[in-house]
Amino acid sequence: MSRAGSPVKLSEEKLARAALTYLAEPGDPALGALLGICEPAEVLAAIKADLLPGIGPGCGDSPASRVALERALGRWRVRLPELPDADGIAGACRDGIGLICPGDAEWPSALDQLGQARPYALWLRGNADLRFACLRSVSMVGSRAATGYGGHVAREIAADLAERGWAIVSGGAYGIDAAAHRGALAAEGVTIAVLACGVDYPYPAGHADLFTAIAAQGLVVSEWPPGRRPARTRFLVRNRAIAALACGTVIVEAGERSGALNTARHAANLGKPLMAVPGPVTSAQSAGCHWIIREWGATCVTRAADVIEMLSPLSVPDALAPGGCSEPAYSPGSGSPGPDPVPSRDDLDADSARVLDALPARGGAGTSTIAVEAGVDLDTVLRCLGRLAGYGFIERGDGGWRLRRPGRTSDGA
Amino acid sequence: MSRAGSPVKLSEEKLARAALTYLAEPGDPALGALLGICEPAEVLAAIKADLLPGIGPGCGDSPASRVALERALGRWRVRLPELPDADGIAGACRDGIGLICPGDAEWPSALDQLGQARPYALWLRGNADLRFACLRSVSMVGSRAATGYGGHVAREIAADLAERGWAIVSGGAYGIDAAAHRGALAAEGVTIAVLACGVDYPYPAGHADLFTAIAAQGLVVSEWPPGRRPARTRFLVRNRAIAALACGTVIVEAGERSGALNTARHAANLGKPLMAVPGPVTSAQSAGCHWIIREWGATCVTRAADVIEMLSPLSVPDALAPGGCSEPAYSPGSGSPGPDPVPSRDDLDADSARVLDALPARGGAGTSTIAVEAGVDLDTVLRCLGRLAGYGFIERGDGGWRLRRPGRTSDGA
Repeated sequence: MSRAGSPVKLSEEKLARAALTYLAEPGDPALGALLGICEPAEVLAAIKADLLPGIGPGCGDSPASRVALERALGRWRVRLPELPDADGIAGACRDGIGLICPGDAEWPSALDQLGQARPYALWLRGNADLRFACLRSVSMVGSRAATGYGGHVAREIAADLAERGWAIVSGGAYGIDAAAHRGALAAEGVTIAVLACGVDYPYPAGHADLFTAIAAQGLVVSEWPPGRRPARTRFLVRNRAIAALACGTVIVEAGERSGALNTARHAANLGKPLMAVPGPVTSAQSAGCHWIIREWGATCVTRAADVIEMLSPLSVPDALAPGGCSEPAYSPGSGSPGPDPVPSRDDLDADSARVLDALPARGGAGTSTIAVEAGVDLDTVLRCLGRLAGYGFIERGDGGWRLRRPGRTSDGA
Repeated sequence: MSRAGSPVKLSEEKLARAALTYLAEPGDPALGALLGICEPAEVLAAIKADLLPGIGPGCGDSPASRVALERALGRWRVRLPELPDADGIAGACRDGIGLICPGDAEWPSALDQLGQARPYALWLRGNADLRFACLRSVSMVGSRAATGYGGHVAREIAADLAERGWAIVSGGAYGIDAAAHRGALAAEGVTIAVLACGVDYPYPAGHADLFTAIAAQGLVVSEWPPGRRPARTRFLVRNRAIAALACGTVIVEAGERSGALNTARHAANLGKPLMAVPGPVTSAQSAGCHWIIREWGATCVTRAADVIEMLSPLSVPDALAPGGCSEPAYSPGSGSPGPDPVPSRDDLDADSARVLDALPARGGAGTSTIAVEAGVDLDTVLRCLGRLAGYGFIERGDGGWRLRRPGRTSDGA
């Protein structure tokens, strides 16, 4: 993947996956099932040739699946006239826009929890590393018609989370979504807007500047190709990606019929920690939050430290379960109010200590160099780097990861 | 017990228990233990004679208990000079003030859950039936320094509960306590103020009129004898009675160090449903509520229907456990918002149906008459009458319980 200024050559598989994002709606169960048994290029070729893909020896065949596939083929072929050619698709990958696919280094493995509903590919705008950001992330969503209270609380908690090294994942709507992004941006943190339209499509129009700011500091992400307009059903499909990308979901304000509760339901179904911020019981915009606290067992959170505690496997065993976040952030333990202490170098877990030792005494090093030096796999290195950065031991610069100095680690480096 | 205008003759046991409320602080573990093995009159006589009560054959004796008893005897005897004589104690029972003791028909059996910490006796001011009221009651407590929001919510929920036939139990403080009482009074419901001083002692002074209004429509209750002043430690001792008297406890607003959390802890320890009303996370007065929702598992409630659902054994098995409320109020089932339906006569449980059948077609009947007619025990009759009154089938008048008409039951009577 490249998000440089000029278009790049894409592999056959990536070209095919990109083409499929033009032809099929994300979450299409027929395409999800097909991609489990066929190569993307094979599926694309079959669609173009008006043949039933995935039917034949070894691929399973039944009258029912044949009828479903015929219908699916019909709806995918409808968009064939609008499908850009290979140059056109590659040309979309420029001006800061890129494409990542399952198997890419930057592909967030958290999305694989979605099974057949996994995105075919993701279009990105911005320069942050999506996989790395998602390892330590919180989705924060809520009502478009947020109150002043809700907007204030979303900004504050998002800013606090960003300051502690957590990325924010949200949609692109007015209200809580925008407040969460703005809080993270203000704290110079990474924030990720997952849109239900093309990453270059400013919807709502009033958020064009916000999306530009998010792309500069984080990422604008979409399952839909550049230029694609939003649609009502797309928001609901998009919500599963918001829930899946992050380690846990926080609902800040939501009416009883808010779409945010759909995201909350996805998070719960994925086995991820679900949290909600309470508010006045006299406010209809908090009714959905209170509802999921009482009826769905969402955790009542009031500040960033509560959220981090929920996502820390040291205090919350659930976070270690499949679908949970495996990022062992610091745990305040008792859960009592107070600032987070930072562990000393001696208190680090074995992997983090090895990764920290692997950083050069002077200058920086890339992730893979560090992995080789530390002798741990790439995913673990990414997690440990995030943790160490959160603790203030290291920072990311132009030359890669480097020790922070002077500071807490100055005598240990 | 009598709360008529003139003093009455009290039995020896009641006189002794009344005297003990003058001599010992409620919750005194030495006296609680003694009353488990000796008659109250026996204990009182020993205190007066400066003998160690409860020591001797069959009563257990050990150097440790002897030392503890000697100390206790010392502190009880300190107040002997101020102990009124029998006429004085009986004289306190007038002008609407009365005394109830374990074993009395009006004694709330819920207090027996406190074991040795059970009140020695209760002083009452007012005319409501304490046992009956407590069978269908909610304690609602919170911060003295309530916000406008907290006061508003306490009043609203208390009024709604009172309208649905639930009694309110609270303290006598400014803030949430007063708001809860005022809500119940406004709805012409029964409300019970449990004081940490004599029932005739207006503390805080600004609540003298409020206590008079409560006594007129409900009850002012205390473990301390008339005339006794409040003290800091007495509030904490009193809190266990507030928690024990009611079927469940709701905290409306509480700072992180609020005394209301002490009442909440008592409710939880007694195995009673514990509920809290959320509020803005920016309000310190809601921090304690959010804390117990998150850390103690208190249920997040936003309105009276949520509270009633928690206390209904039809939907909440906990309420059937010892210490829970055995009042099978209507359960909305799904818990979704909406008005409560009222069951038809055919949908009533067997006991309620028998009690309803036992009411005379014309005029009223007393509780014991109804019990005989229905062939069910007194406690069950009381519960069923409360339920039937809550459903609107019956009402209480000067001639006892009677069918309500015209109304839903007019064709069934």
